[in-house]
Amino acid sequence: MSFAAASAVTAESAGRYKADIEPGWDIVGNANGGYLMAIAARAAAMAAGGRLPATATAHFVAPGRPGPASIDVQVHKAGRRFTTVGATLADDERPLLAFLGSFADAALPASSVTRIEAAPPDIPPPEECVPIEPTESFPPPFMGKVELRLHPEDASFTSGVPRFRGWFRLRNGEPIDSFGLLVAVDAFPPTVFAAQLPIAWTPTLELTAHIRAVPEPGWLRCLFTTRFISGGYLEEDGEVWDASGRLVAQSRQLALLPTTA
Amino acid sequence: MSFAAASAVTAESAGRYKADIEPGWDIVGNANGGYLMAIAARAAAMAAGGRLPATATAHFVAPGRPGPASIDVQVHKAGRRFTTVGATLADDERPLLAFLGSFADAALPASSVTRIEAAPPDIPPPEECVPIEPTESFPPPFMGKVELRLHPEDASFTSGVPRFRGWFRLRNGEPIDSFGLLVAVDAFPPTVFAAQLPIAWTPTLELTAHIRAVPEPGWLRCLFTTRFISGGYLEEDGEVWDASGRLVAQSRQLALLPTTA
Repeated sequence: MSFAAASAVTAESAGRYKADIEPGWDIVGNANGGYLMAIAARAAAMAAGGRLPATATAHFVAPGRPGPASIDVQVHKAGRRFTTVGATLADDERPLLAFLGSFADAALPASSVTRIEAAPPDIPPPEECVPIEPTESFPPPFMGKVELRLHPEDASFTSGVPRFRGWFRLRNGEPIDSFGLLVAVDAFPPTVFAAQLPIAWTPTLELTAHIRAVPEPGWLRCLFTTRFISGGYLEEDGEVWDASGRLVAQSRQLALLPTTA
Repeated sequence: MSFAAASAVTAESAGRYKADIEPGWDIVGNANGGYLMAIAARAAAMAAGGRLPATATAHFVAPGRPGPASIDVQVHKAGRRFTTVGATLADDERPLLAFLGSFADAALPASSVTRIEAAPPDIPPPEECVPIEPTESFPPPFMGKVELRLHPEDASFTSGVPRFRGWFRLRNGEPIDSFGLLVAVDAFPPTVFAAQLPIAWTPTLELTAHIRAVPEPGWLRCLFTTRFISGGYLEEDGEVWDASGRLVAQSRQLALLPTTA
């Protein structure tokens, strides 16, 4: 089943959509956060008349498991340039995530100004990087849906630096659209796994992604870094570049540290 | 009038709060975005039983002007560690912003891990920096409420680098709480004003702030940078450090470029 089908939504009534959380998109049983966010974003985009996400935020309040889901959507404003939409994704029992996004037409009006202060991350070509293959636990089954190739320096998880660099695509070769980018920004292992810190898992509280452009077909070049592990939290900053060398997404998530309690 | 009073909310009915957008917190007539966000956050925090914002996002859909406002609040989940709340701030005529935040108790459970990859920004002491004083237009009247001292290298707006470094406090000496941090992350001039680009204004579409800690009293040390001006958008990344040398807030906003249309 394609990502497009696995994240599809259907309108049920005014402001209410249905979807199915599909198996295979999970990390030891819990659906990938970016995948869940893509489902909510598709419902919100439909309510926004087919506009595409420009900036989207999800707060994750419960783990998602395969099965039927519903999305309640509220259009806050339908403007000339942006439509701002809130949404809640729930399974039969409880809310899974709260979503807020602003959506724009695929082609924004041209701007006279472009200036880039940072180059795409330096990563050897995909064939010289290290693939992550799915297993029953870790790497998770989700790696059967997405294909990651890690920078050789990061692939042993012993770099000592909270950073992952690598390539992303969907296993089935499906083109990655604005919704697929929401999966891309949440698909890599937690940055702290590379830092040799005593941290087994970092659940995501909130993820915000800015979608700058719809990617050209091909591998996505990705960089995820963490600079501040403090106060019980850490951030993970992501950059995603397409095959044509454009920045297509920028992301930041706030994740939780294990507590000593 | 203190910031606390200017951003105060009162409960009106279940899920509905009232506030006043006060004069003086504006930039040529439009209320500062961080100030409006603080009003919404106070209502959401009240609905969260007095918990404080850990991560908060606002999408700005219309400019706010002084006068009465209402905040409709929806608690998505009240959990053991976090309460996730959506809110809409509106004036008498229209919605001004949509808000989504997760709130936590003031003291999070201690974590065993702290690691900081970046030092606080290097800025000369406040008395060696350049104050910004309010005028009727630019600098805006809002600068009578907040006190900024810019890094001498950035103060002439001719550095050529889309970056501002400087100090922030409230003019009246009021301590800055979690809500005041929402003002701090949106108080500096747009980064592009320092880059000598042909851009007169960059309206904010969305602002997300992570609040890592409540600041110690004193000046806040701030850094705002932009790396990617592309696709009709730019991001502004902010870091705010308190007088004790702790990172207290991290922010990112997505702002709009002028169009050639």
